[in-house]
Amino acid sequence: MVDCPFCSEDIVGAQFAESKHCRAVYNISPILPGHSMVIPKRHFRSISELPDEVYRDMMLFMRSVSERLQKAFQASGINWTLQEGEEAGQTVPHLHFHLIPRQPVDLPEAGDWYPKLREQQLIDSDKRPQLTDHEMKEVVLWLRTYFENHE
Amino acid sequence: MVDCPFCSEDIVGAQFAESKHCRAVYNISPILPGHSMVIPKRHFRSISELPDEVYRDMMLFMRSVSERLQKAFQASGINWTLQEGEEAGQTVPHLHFHLIPRQPVDLPEAGDWYPKLREQQLIDSDKRPQLTDHEMKEVVLWLRTYFENHE
Repeated sequence: MVDCPFCSEDIVGAQFAESKHCRAVYNISPILPGHSMVIPKRHFRSISELPDEVYRDMMLFMRSVSERLQKAFQASGINWTLQEGEEAGQTVPHLHFHLIPRQPVDLPEAGDWYPKLREQQLIDSDKRPQLTDHEMKEVVLWLRTYFENHE
Repeated sequence: MVDCPFCSEDIVGAQFAESKHCRAVYNISPILPGHSMVIPKRHFRSISELPDEVYRDMMLFMRSVSERLQKAFQASGINWTLQEGEEAGQTVPHLHFHLIPRQPVDLPEAGDWYPKLREQQLIDSDKRPQLTDHEMKEVVLWLRTYFENHE
């Protein structure tokens, strides 16, 4: 879809793993180390719109990404979240799950991940803390290698 | 598991739908109408611990529950969330996804669902607003019928 950041060719630069129908991409404004997203390659807004095959592929891929992300970032927990529909907090109208690896006391309160996520999605994109091109390339390359070596 | 509220026999009273390995149960302290959980019948703490068959069953069931919950509560969006590990905010050590159907302006801000969820999980269980036995039975019976008629 035109104007969708997750359909743009640029998204491939943030991709560190893929399945038949999905990509795992690193978040350009990670709220914690390892903060990534799993998205379908084609443009779908919601879970309901996904053909069965794509949904199954997405869910199997998500678990595999979730486990490897935790290992890569030496995490002992993880948050998954889906916001489907603007009324649920969806800001980019292309289905995406956030995966956020967690470590003990990585935030003042365990639940602080969500206010941080909201803050970074809502504030003006010029002002939110973003990785530089160099930092993004570095983490994506490192993760690609890690994922290739941990199938 | 002894002392696990999601392994207790009482949980069956909150169940409005089931798959081979999972239950859909209504939350006794719903933050919004329709707030439910999908849990495995057996005790697993995390996604990683699930046998492949149970994981697949859970994910297929979750989508089906998610779609029917939205229809039942005339919602146009939904939040799914998983908090895996205490450091991620998990309070009951039995794997569970929260499913929260959403409607436009059901909360002052779309993202307010999460602070509400935290509040209700964290505050003293005697003090948090809970459905009465009668209210719980009523909504569960209504949902059972709805789900049976909308396979």
